[in-house]
Amino acid sequence: MVTSRWSAVPAAHQVSLRRRGPVLERAILEAALEQLSTVGWSGLTMEGVAAVAQTGKAAVYRRWPSKEDLVADALQAALPDLDEADDFGSIREDLYQLCRRLRDAMFSRPGFALRAVLHECDNVTAVRFQEVILQHVIEPSTRLFKDVVYRGIERGDVRPEATGDLIFDVIPGLMMYRSKVCASEWEDGDIARMIDQVMVPLLVRHPR
Amino acid sequence: MVTSRWSAVPAAHQVSLRRRGPVLERAILEAALEQLSTVGWSGLTMEGVAAVAQTGKAAVYRRWPSKEDLVADALQAALPDLDEADDFGSIREDLYQLCRRLRDAMFSRPGFALRAVLHECDNVTAVRFQEVILQHVIEPSTRLFKDVVYRGIERGDVRPEATGDLIFDVIPGLMMYRSKVCASEWEDGDIARMIDQVMVPLLVRHPR
Repeated sequence: MVTSRWSAVPAAHQVSLRRRGPVLERAILEAALEQLSTVGWSGLTMEGVAAVAQTGKAAVYRRWPSKEDLVADALQAALPDLDEADDFGSIREDLYQLCRRLRDAMFSRPGFALRAVLHECDNVTAVRFQEVILQHVIEPSTRLFKDVVYRGIERGDVRPEATGDLIFDVIPGLMMYRSKVCASEWEDGDIARMIDQVMVPLLVRHPR
Repeated sequence: MVTSRWSAVPAAHQVSLRRRGPVLERAILEAALEQLSTVGWSGLTMEGVAAVAQTGKAAVYRRWPSKEDLVADALQAALPDLDEADDFGSIREDLYQLCRRLRDAMFSRPGFALRAVLHECDNVTAVRFQEVILQHVIEPSTRLFKDVVYRGIERGDVRPEATGDLIFDVIPGLMMYRSKVCASEWEDGDIARMIDQVMVPLLVRHPR
């Protein structure tokens, strides 16, 4: 029912869109992401994705045996690369800029899609996506926070003992908590307040 | 279908359980909580709750017009009172004991039920429960963290500027984050590490 407006696309049009290999794959992944943002995890079907990508259901199933596989790949392909944290000269500015990047990723289309998947899917399915999140969101951002803190220790504006594993989870924890509890969108001003109220007192070498 | 084994309870048995007013209400709320823990939000039905409480569907609907109303009341009634944080003589011990109480509440039956509801129900329904969570979990725990920190300022082991609103969300944020991301159950040792790595450096008056 949901896909009926798509199956009404004339066959001639579909032929003109015939694509292969990576181009078609990208179109399908893109369509999966679009479906996640519009109809969510529970509304997403392989048929619906095929229709949005203007291809056949078989082309989708040939590459991804299940909805879970397709969505995991779609999220992985779209999430931003969190490769390196630039040096802005101070721990305060390094953290501020890094948090803005993470905030932008959270509120990007794949970020929304990822949260939709987590909110919606049952616990058994969620395990599958925990892995995606762990590898493509959690681990890279923890690594970036670590890089920034260790650089601060070398630079001399971070106290040398500030290397406990829980320290690197303070910002992700606050960002997740306030997004959930008071729907914070983490404006730049909120990020600055978090750094100044929490991270600077926690990290900087005394006396400040 | 799910409730068939319950409807098989003989009528004579039901009559012997006839209860009224607060007693019956408590039985229904208790049954709702049990259903949340076993079949979850999506599996819970008014019929199922009535069956577990060994009463009729009408008795449930008379008091709660919808599943949402019933579950909201059941959660409210079962969540522990977070009324006061005892004074253990130091900010470290005050926070440690308070966190253990919150951890126990998180892993109690209503705690699990609350999380099940949040995970499972759609966004429109979730708004209803956000209110329950805000009033019965978030606001009381934030108030307790504030009490503990302000007491520390008076006592002299907390620095007087440590009163920014984000400070009081660090522990709830870390607890939520690690529960979700690495399924931490917050053993006493994890709580102690959080206090020592994060909260003591963040709060205590320098030099330590």
